[in-house]
Amino acid sequence: MLSDIQISRDHACKPIADIATKLGINETELSLFGQNKAKVSLSVAKRLADKPNAKLVIVTAVTPTPFGEGKTVTTIGLTQAMNAIGVKTCGCIRQPSMGPVFGIKGGAAGGGYAQVVPMEELNLHLTGDIHAVSSAHNLAAAAIDARLFHETKLGAEAFTEASGLSAVNIDPENILWRRVVDHNERSLRQIEVGFGAVNGPVHSSGFDITAASELMAILALSQDLHDLRQRIGRLVLALDTHANPITAEDIGVAGAMTAIMKAAIEPTLMQTISGDPCLIHAGPFANIAHGNSSIIADNIAAKLADVVVTEAGFGSDMGFEKFSNIKVRESGYAPSAAVVVVTLKALKANSGVESQLAIDEPDLARLQAGFANLEWHINNVHQYGAPVVVAINRFPTDTAEELDWLQAKIASTRAFGCAISTAFADGAAGGAELAKLVHAATQTASNFKCLYQAEQSLEAKLMTLAEVGYGAAGVTMSDKATQQLAWLDKHGYSHMPVCIAKTPMSISHDASVKGVPRGFDLPINELRLNAGAGFVTALVGKVLTMPGLGVRPNYINIDIDANDEIIGLD
Amino acid sequence: MLSDIQISRDHACKPIADIATKLGINETELSLFGQNKAKVSLSVAKRLADKPNAKLVIVTAVTPTPFGEGKTVTTIGLTQAMNAIGVKTCGCIRQPSMGPVFGIKGGAAGGGYAQVVPMEELNLHLTGDIHAVSSAHNLAAAAIDARLFHETKLGAEAFTEASGLSAVNIDPENILWRRVVDHNERSLRQIEVGFGAVNGPVHSSGFDITAASELMAILALSQDLHDLRQRIGRLVLALDTHANPITAEDIGVAGAMTAIMKAAIEPTLMQTISGDPCLIHAGPFANIAHGNSSIIADNIAAKLADVVVTEAGFGSDMGFEKFSNIKVRESGYAPSAAVVVVTLKALKANSGVESQLAIDEPDLARLQAGFANLEWHINNVHQYGAPVVVAINRFPTDTAEELDWLQAKIASTRAFGCAISTAFADGAAGGAELAKLVHAATQTASNFKCLYQAEQSLEAKLMTLAEVGYGAAGVTMSDKATQQLAWLDKHGYSHMPVCIAKTPMSISHDASVKGVPRGFDLPINELRLNAGAGFVTALVGKVLTMPGLGVRPNYINIDIDANDEIIGLD
Repeated sequence: MLSDIQISRDHACKPIADIATKLGINETELSLFGQNKAKVSLSVAKRLADKPNAKLVIVTAVTPTPFGEGKTVTTIGLTQAMNAIGVKTCGCIRQPSMGPVFGIKGGAAGGGYAQVVPMEELNLHLTGDIHAVSSAHNLAAAAIDARLFHETKLGAEAFTEASGLSAVNIDPENILWRRVVDHNERSLRQIEVGFGAVNGPVHSSGFDITAASELMAILALSQDLHDLRQRIGRLVLALDTHANPITAEDIGVAGAMTAIMKAAIEPTLMQTISGDPCLIHAGPFANIAHGNSSIIADNIAAKLADVVVTEAGFGSDMGFEKFSNIKVRESGYAPSAAVVVVTLKALKANSGVESQLAIDEPDLARLQAGFANLEWHINNVHQYGAPVVVAINRFPTDTAEELDWLQAKIASTRAFGCAISTAFADGAAGGAELAKLVHAATQTASNFKCLYQAEQSLEAKLMTLAEVGYGAAGVTMSDKATQQLAWLDKHGYSHMPVCIAKTPMSISHDASVKGVPRGFDLPINELRLNAGAGFVTALVGKVLTMPGLGVRPNYINIDIDANDEIIGLD
Repeated sequence: MLSDIQISRDHACKPIADIATKLGINETELSLFGQNKAKVSLSVAKRLADKPNAKLVIVTAVTPTPFGEGKTVTTIGLTQAMNAIGVKTCGCIRQPSMGPVFGIKGGAAGGGYAQVVPMEELNLHLTGDIHAVSSAHNLAAAAIDARLFHETKLGAEAFTEASGLSAVNIDPENILWRRVVDHNERSLRQIEVGFGAVNGPVHSSGFDITAASELMAILALSQDLHDLRQRIGRLVLALDTHANPITAEDIGVAGAMTAIMKAAIEPTLMQTISGDPCLIHAGPFANIAHGNSSIIADNIAAKLADVVVTEAGFGSDMGFEKFSNIKVRESGYAPSAAVVVVTLKALKANSGVESQLAIDEPDLARLQAGFANLEWHINNVHQYGAPVVVAINRFPTDTAEELDWLQAKIASTRAFGCAISTAFADGAAGGAELAKLVHAATQTASNFKCLYQAEQSLEAKLMTLAEVGYGAAGVTMSDKATQQLAWLDKHGYSHMPVCIAKTPMSISHDASVKGVPRGFDLPINELRLNAGAGFVTALVGKVLTMPGLGVRPNYINIDIDANDEIIGLD
């Protein structure tokens, strides 16, 4: 089969203006970015406010493995297949981060014949939203450090005289706002800044990847530019010398940050390889942040299509849990069906069973052992109240015997049904069976509910997530987390939902425990306030917010050819 | 008078596609970025290769002062006025850096009724080129540090086994490639990176503002994407343990960097407030880099218009010198006329005379004392061989008596002529006299020449620039610079032109010496190889490559209003 970028390049895209017109977007609601991308105005949703919302379908997966489960392939393939069977459907996915693109793999546009095209435009820059997030984020970092510099140098009184601003008395040991860059930058994880005679005081800082920025979560959760502005104002950048929060509003940088993000508030329309619409917007990570594309994009798509297909990061314990307890809580837009993506390889890798056989060889015993992981995810999604469809993303090496066994086994679960998808190899046609099943699921009654109430205490929310969300026996709180809990209570942040930051590679906090971990206590090491995004992140185990480049990074393969085309972005 | 952003917002822009059509750009050569911006394909210049080039006019100024001389106002006003008198003219300017926008002033789009509109789109993001430069630059930084990490951790042999790549043996004390961000970030000037158990080794780094990136200079000097790719490959990122250069090609990151900059190679078309075309492309600083917009933009404009007006940063000793000895040397596109912008305030501020009177009060003695600075700049430009027109950018407080005196005095110089411009207040009409004079100047014979030859030694070039370019008695070389000179000779970099990095606030290296400094030795402290851009930068005195935010930064004024419009960007 051809490489993803070759398939993308060989494909003749339709003008994006035509895709928009077919979807029902007026010319005045569209800003073209070349022939293949366009920003969509939020006024679309206002114009069509009276129209009922589309059915929302959320795509999640079993516990991820290094082999790739094809969740984006299935999301895009399902969008293509739904349209092919005559259901007007719009995809909504996150913007890929350039870090992984240059680090470990080429793109994140789906793949094969189930991808968003042109893939290099999706994967590099898109329409600049991630750059805007980086820029706004780093302006706040510059602002807080400059304020520290001037207040330290002049003293509070002289500072006020020179600037006309009240001193905020930043505690240099408690600058909470780090910096961001959209690359895998190991050596910037922990840094010391402010060296040189006139640049101080020296203090600690560090860089996260932009997808881990709270601003990215804010972009994904905002309703409009005004909401974005208010949320940015609430960002807590540092503590003062009395441990009180200093916000972006306090130092007067929130308006400028919003100005930088003004264009980023609009989702970007692109197309699948079948010419179906797909909105791309925001890219929060699903471990440290809430891992779902934007409410704004969903809201626009909801008015233009009959079905909206969106995707949550990692397994159902991660992105789907946050989709349910954070995103839907904010948006009020509940799913009518959920799709759990699985592969034979993923179940074998999740079995915890050692085998002499390669992962793509028939191995029924291992498959049987791994099935528990799928069943756990089916039950996990099911408890939120939407019908669960299992999508088996078929690989060429999969045998009929194993597929038959798996389908029969799924029939005994709470799943609404299961279907095999070969959208990667066959495009829309390969997703037809899945599309019909998902469409049927969306026609059934759905009774979606969150796992906890906002007014519960943060501790109660953590307990609920641990026990009901992960099947843990309970939680243990570090001394640090206990102190932070008291601080959050004192400053009125207890009403917020909780965002668990943990490894995605296990349902538990321990990446090495496969299958269905039981009887463990979830260790809460640290709590981080995301006052703008509107949630408290609980760090469970060790969670990296900045990836590193490997020993032979993917950038080595990337270049331009003699025709000025990008190569190696697979 | 209204604020710049108010004037910009009140103005109804024409669709940029109409501006492009009128200029002679075909639909297939244009990529729209919304209604007000469009990328222009390099194929325009190829299609019109047989057409003679437009007359090129370069706008420079006297030694800059904190009051602002209005060089961009004059550049844009002249573009408007030339079109108004019937000469098809295209402006070519640099993309503003966001650092100064949020730091000390709002925009850099010109101002009043001589500006590029919409000014907030020019000043924030434009079409993402600066973001692309930042991203490509920082990928190289991540790549060199990741290589250092893996080679250090594994050792050369195991590294090669694991990666299939030859070890390059980076000297951690000689990582030459810093990082960039497009903000004023004092505390990132000098940093230490790589803290944490698995992130090291700890070593020094720092951030420059993106405009100071060598990649920005490369973008401005490249002829096309292929040339850009080759130049990026030549970038020297670090030295190895034997002090040999390690290039971007050596570590395999040059192709990916080029892929990131693929769209940035195309200039962006915008319009003046009179609806005239203006190409925006690249933004190298004029102190540390060569301070001129791109060769590609000039080459495209040269085929579409009859006159191209472009601008060089700071005074004629800075951007104009580099325009002549670096940019024209590369492009072969020599100017037919040069404009030196002056204001009464600038001459008074350059007089070196203390006065009881405010800078905008009549003060003929101080004006007379300051005139020498203007005459120096006229002579400096004149020696390159193009006719020199002086543009007096008139302020409302200027008196007829002082203006008359100045005009009479200019008549006694080598200037082709002088004209008063009130384009700021009056738009195209206010630049009519200047436009006619400039047009007449472009019709005279011009015999442009560079100050030195490429094959001269670096020392000879430095000497020529010091003596002929600045009127110095000679140069003094630090021991460090002397050693670096030997290294550059040894590694075959002597053929490159020299880019002097010095204060723009004096013709000499000492910002406090006003007027016409004489008899000084230019102290060469350090030489920096810019192998990709193709010049050697000589650091003279202390030159900051990263600005800082002041005590009351401009970002405090910036916000969005109830109509989602940006305010405070003046």
